[in-house]
Amino acid sequence: MSTKNLQVVNTSLPKVDGISLVTGSARYVDDFTMPGMLYAKILTSPHPHARITSINVERARAVPGVHAVLTYKDLKPIRHTKAGQSYPEPSPYDRVILDNKVRFIGDRVAVVAAETLRIAEEALQLIEIEFEVLPAILDLEKAMQPGAPIIHDEQDASGIYDASRNLAAHKAVGYGDVEQGFKEADLIIENTYHTQRQKHCALETHGSLAYLDENGRLVVITSTQVPFHTRRQLAYILEMPMSQIRVIKPRIGGGFGNKQGTFMEDLVCVLTLRTRRPVKLIFNRAEEFHQGYMRHPALIRLKTGVKKDGTIVAQQMSVLADTGAYGDHALTLPTSAGRKILPLYPVDHVQFECHTVYTNLPVCGAFRGYGATKGTFVVESQMDEIARALNMDPLELRLKNCIKQGNVDRLAAAFGEKIPRVMHTCGLTECMQRGAEAIGWREKHGKPGNGVVKRGIGMACSMQGSGIAGVDWGAATLKLNDDGTFSLFVGATDLGTGSDTVLVQIAAEALGVPPEAISILSSDTDLTPFDVGAYASSTTYVSGGAVKKAAEQMLTAILAIAANMSGEEPTNLNYHNRQIIAQNGKSVSLREVALYSVYETKEQLTITASNTSHISPPPFAASFAEVEVDTETGQVKVVKLVTAVDCGVAINRQLAEGQVEGAVTQGMGYALFEEMAFDDQGRLLNPNFADYKLFNAFDMPQLETILVETYEESGPYGAKSIGEVPINTPAPAIANAIYDAIGVRLFDLPMTAEKVLTALKKRK
Amino acid sequence: MSTKNLQVVNTSLPKVDGISLVTGSARYVDDFTMPGMLYAKILTSPHPHARITSINVERARAVPGVHAVLTYKDLKPIRHTKAGQSYPEPSPYDRVILDNKVRFIGDRVAVVAAETLRIAEEALQLIEIEFEVLPAILDLEKAMQPGAPIIHDEQDASGIYDASRNLAAHKAVGYGDVEQGFKEADLIIENTYHTQRQKHCALETHGSLAYLDENGRLVVITSTQVPFHTRRQLAYILEMPMSQIRVIKPRIGGGFGNKQGTFMEDLVCVLTLRTRRPVKLIFNRAEEFHQGYMRHPALIRLKTGVKKDGTIVAQQMSVLADTGAYGDHALTLPTSAGRKILPLYPVDHVQFECHTVYTNLPVCGAFRGYGATKGTFVVESQMDEIARALNMDPLELRLKNCIKQGNVDRLAAAFGEKIPRVMHTCGLTECMQRGAEAIGWREKHGKPGNGVVKRGIGMACSMQGSGIAGVDWGAATLKLNDDGTFSLFVGATDLGTGSDTVLVQIAAEALGVPPEAISILSSDTDLTPFDVGAYASSTTYVSGGAVKKAAEQMLTAILAIAANMSGEEPTNLNYHNRQIIAQNGKSVSLREVALYSVYETKEQLTITASNTSHISPPPFAASFAEVEVDTETGQVKVVKLVTAVDCGVAINRQLAEGQVEGAVTQGMGYALFEEMAFDDQGRLLNPNFADYKLFNAFDMPQLETILVETYEESGPYGAKSIGEVPINTPAPAIANAIYDAIGVRLFDLPMTAEKVLTALKKRK
Repeated sequence: MSTKNLQVVNTSLPKVDGISLVTGSARYVDDFTMPGMLYAKILTSPHPHARITSINVERARAVPGVHAVLTYKDLKPIRHTKAGQSYPEPSPYDRVILDNKVRFIGDRVAVVAAETLRIAEEALQLIEIEFEVLPAILDLEKAMQPGAPIIHDEQDASGIYDASRNLAAHKAVGYGDVEQGFKEADLIIENTYHTQRQKHCALETHGSLAYLDENGRLVVITSTQVPFHTRRQLAYILEMPMSQIRVIKPRIGGGFGNKQGTFMEDLVCVLTLRTRRPVKLIFNRAEEFHQGYMRHPALIRLKTGVKKDGTIVAQQMSVLADTGAYGDHALTLPTSAGRKILPLYPVDHVQFECHTVYTNLPVCGAFRGYGATKGTFVVESQMDEIARALNMDPLELRLKNCIKQGNVDRLAAAFGEKIPRVMHTCGLTECMQRGAEAIGWREKHGKPGNGVVKRGIGMACSMQGSGIAGVDWGAATLKLNDDGTFSLFVGATDLGTGSDTVLVQIAAEALGVPPEAISILSSDTDLTPFDVGAYASSTTYVSGGAVKKAAEQMLTAILAIAANMSGEEPTNLNYHNRQIIAQNGKSVSLREVALYSVYETKEQLTITASNTSHISPPPFAASFAEVEVDTETGQVKVVKLVTAVDCGVAINRQLAEGQVEGAVTQGMGYALFEEMAFDDQGRLLNPNFADYKLFNAFDMPQLETILVETYEESGPYGAKSIGEVPINTPAPAIANAIYDAIGVRLFDLPMTAEKVLTALKKRK
Repeated sequence: MSTKNLQVVNTSLPKVDGISLVTGSARYVDDFTMPGMLYAKILTSPHPHARITSINVERARAVPGVHAVLTYKDLKPIRHTKAGQSYPEPSPYDRVILDNKVRFIGDRVAVVAAETLRIAEEALQLIEIEFEVLPAILDLEKAMQPGAPIIHDEQDASGIYDASRNLAAHKAVGYGDVEQGFKEADLIIENTYHTQRQKHCALETHGSLAYLDENGRLVVITSTQVPFHTRRQLAYILEMPMSQIRVIKPRIGGGFGNKQGTFMEDLVCVLTLRTRRPVKLIFNRAEEFHQGYMRHPALIRLKTGVKKDGTIVAQQMSVLADTGAYGDHALTLPTSAGRKILPLYPVDHVQFECHTVYTNLPVCGAFRGYGATKGTFVVESQMDEIARALNMDPLELRLKNCIKQGNVDRLAAAFGEKIPRVMHTCGLTECMQRGAEAIGWREKHGKPGNGVVKRGIGMACSMQGSGIAGVDWGAATLKLNDDGTFSLFVGATDLGTGSDTVLVQIAAEALGVPPEAISILSSDTDLTPFDVGAYASSTTYVSGGAVKKAAEQMLTAILAIAANMSGEEPTNLNYHNRQIIAQNGKSVSLREVALYSVYETKEQLTITASNTSHISPPPFAASFAEVEVDTETGQVKVVKLVTAVDCGVAINRQLAEGQVEGAVTQGMGYALFEEMAFDDQGRLLNPNFADYKLFNAFDMPQLETILVETYEESGPYGAKSIGEVPINTPAPAIANAIYDAIGVRLFDLPMTAEKVLTALKKRK
């Protein structure tokens, strides 16, 4: 199979919602208002760890215009259910809806619904609370020390983790025999790396609007990546039948993993159920910083054994991660640092261990890259250390060891995946070769120059998945309209990524129609078939596969009708450009088939197909960074960043490039600037875009994106995924480039000017 | 098959939208408002027939707040397409969107959209028009006379009718040899009857709100009975792809055939397309009277030949009907007077002829009963005349001649129906027997008493169809949700009739779940499968059949999964009360199957099924009226009305009874009071509920409804239809009761006190 003869797929079709987005007609949660709507506001904890000994809301309730004030006293202490794709069960990791204990500054204490936001804010200030302040853990290394305060001392906090040690998750897994492997090695390199709390910073903050529809069903318009999971969670938390809840995702302004969390939907719905009024809550930026997810910080130790010729024989990684006060991603995310990245270099002996602890800091969760980002920083930083130790070209070392087509991800099996994860496609070598060519690797590497400002070149590789193998799935429904156009219904969730466009392209291609002939409706639990939602780089591969299946079945049904009309067997029909030509010379158009089905056979053609990810085929990426380091200030400037990505076939080339550009920008911020900073009282110091430094237009280097095409047979039209993998490579590529420039290795993200300067001074 | 073991069907489940209706949360068109919404108002003709020689809208356009003023000069003269289920072609019968000629008082001249209704009304008054007034035809008998003014002299007014004679439609059809039949008869009775213009008087007037959604697609929320037909018509009239138009029917307050018309949607959409703003138009009551449909008035001649023993041998009916200035129902409705009713008494020789003419009066169209109502008045009035001439009991004459199970409707074949219309069920005899029993026929008939107020008993029978054979169809989609509940999507249109409830009952019965487990979404062309809409008594039989098929296929799919789960063949499973018990003893619940399909097989179960009406099985009705006639005033009071109906199995007994009660009330109004009255200038004299007398609470007799159950195998759970047939019988039953009371036959509807008194005086 190839991309030859494709009409719609692999082109750069403008976004189907593009005009609405640029003209401002697209509606985000905050664009919805309703008669009688109330505004909600959450009162949060000022203490990192405390027990509520007394709470009095009488004065707040008495404020005119206040319709509800709720605290833990008003609600059953129901614990949030597991995130992600799992049966509806309470999660031992997650919070109860409102609790009598607070575990971080920003933890929920009470919620108010009032006729204006100002009244709600006023009422919050009138809530009288007494806290018993408890000692707090603000350092992940101290969480498991004997005598540490216990963050989850509640009765039901027993289960798969060890609450009494503040251990949120633990996993040890591997294959081969690392001890043996290290014995066989000629050289062993071992380092410890530190990665930071990064904030997603989607331009749209979280928002939800709940209301009761005319039949009394609960509707939630919310900025979520996972409408069906949200419905499941709300049904559990609210103790309502799922059929009485409808979750709608309108246009949303970015997710990046943050909008997998149910941070407000539960409270907004409770307020609507109590007041019988529409209730809206939109986080401001500070609330988003405190109450949303963030990337898990971690200490990661990596030990690698290599032969003199550069052959890697053993790798051992141990992760100590901080999930904050809660966190349903405590197991799956930090383990992904190894699970997703150690397979990059297939090695005979691998050992991985992870401990995730609770601290009295805000909650960590899903973030684009999902553990692979920190794993890549560690593995790819160390690869350059190994190359230096062996005096090899880092590119050559990687090319020698890297994963290739036909290889099997043995760690996936060790993690319990049932179907062997074979690399049916792997463009990583070509990514490295073409990226090296584009940056001028051979000419520029190892030539820092003599000035105050040194120049360096660095590279890094990464891989990711396409949905979670054996877990993620989605479905698509296609309806044929009277005029030969189609309505496409998908549970898949466009976060601004353009997935609606990609899915329309797949449908149009498979149906042989122009994209204008497809109307898409996505992300409404009432109206669309099931989909796990947008995470784990799943939409194009998983949901797109469902769309392709549905379209193919639809075309078969259409040809059966055309066969009827033309008096020929379906096998004797030729379909091209919305015209079906029979061997007997008769020809009918798609529109004629549609009219025939409406007016003659009298049958509504509607097809639903489902699709899942069996082995999560990885996309691959290689980034090459060229940096300038000012040795007097420590300032690092990225001059050029080349990223070559194997995402299989790009369904929409421009959108794929957009994903790469967005991801590497976020990756450069992670490398150089972004970090949530706390004081010694657990207070977040930079919950705003003035003090939390994002990578912006002035910081941008010259970007170059190379799409290395492979054809993944299991994906729709050869597609794998692209949304996450390019975020992983900038940080290690820049770290390696800094080393190339100034001979200093930074083990601690972000690599600020201060750290560079300190490291330079230390070396001197 | 029988109704034994039914759990949900055949009960009186409260309406699924009942709470929303009684609490006022249900939303009708006028309950929707949108930011920036404009109000539209139509300027109509003050002349019954005129040409616009000059029109100046400059002053109107200059009014602040006016956003658009449109006349025929601004629009392409596109003719409305055919109503009902037909390919999208222009209708030779219907109007062009805005024309330079007006053909009745109330015909559309111009339309305005402004920021308030007051501004729109003000602007209308500033439009300056000069008319060339033309001679008008206000009497259907004069329409085809030589030299009559030609109402449709436009160029494209050629086609299947003879515009040059004002002939809108003509049909002659029959079987056997009527001349021979009349020769064989011992007695021939021939009379001419006149039936009037009746107005539907749905409590909600027509209303539409059009807007462009965020993607620029045109959405119309409108009080229509036929969302899919409206979409088709709008696509044609607006020259837009159908896929760019979405039609939504919200809650609506009655249709009765009137809401099959596209009286405003086209103009509202044009205004939205021109102004890019939401535009709403709600008819006031006077506009509804002038611009909506009304029942066709007709002169009907009926000639019947009978043997001395009462055997009917030949019937000949000729209809001269008036469609008003336009009317897409000009052929199908007036011909239904014979087509639907002559089969009531299977006769060897039948001849039917119909001429429908244009006049310069408002437009006639579909109305509950659709021609059968006037046909029943004629046939059933004459049956009593025959009985009197033969000195037979009218009940016995009917029982002797009436259609019975196994009979074939030979007229249907003559009209071109391909499948023989066999009466697989026919409860008419039982309807008559039980109705006669309930009214006390034998005791009371022929005993008018001696006072000033005479008492009389009369009866009449009728039949109708269940959808249009070979034409009407609908589809239903069922989606299984995670929790074992279902979403039901139907194009079928609930007009307040309760069809949403009936369809939920059918789905619940077939799926073996309580009705609460089904969420229904109906009447949205984007979201639901196709359905022809609510007319011709089709919804329960046709759309209900689709729901049952979809539910049965869904249950099969569910059992296949359960078989998988329990390791048994599907044939070895027993399904009861949402539990599937395998022969091997394993048991799984419906909810477990749903969870299994979400979390294990990973498949969205969604089923779409379609269903059509092959032979339109008739429901039957017999009404028995007891009246008091004041011989001094002519006033007729209905004392009691018994109506027995064979609708097959009533899916919802209470709703079925409600249909009967509503229909006979409307039928009594038709009998005694209701008539649109015009002066000799073609001006409607009573366009309001003060002057147009409806049958109201004070007029109500004791009502009794008897549901005579038959089991129609082709219908869902034995159902046929019920919405229309009971409207047909009150008028002739009352006419016959009046005759029984005072020995006077009235041939002219409505039978007002004035007419009764005049007839009484004439007789004396």
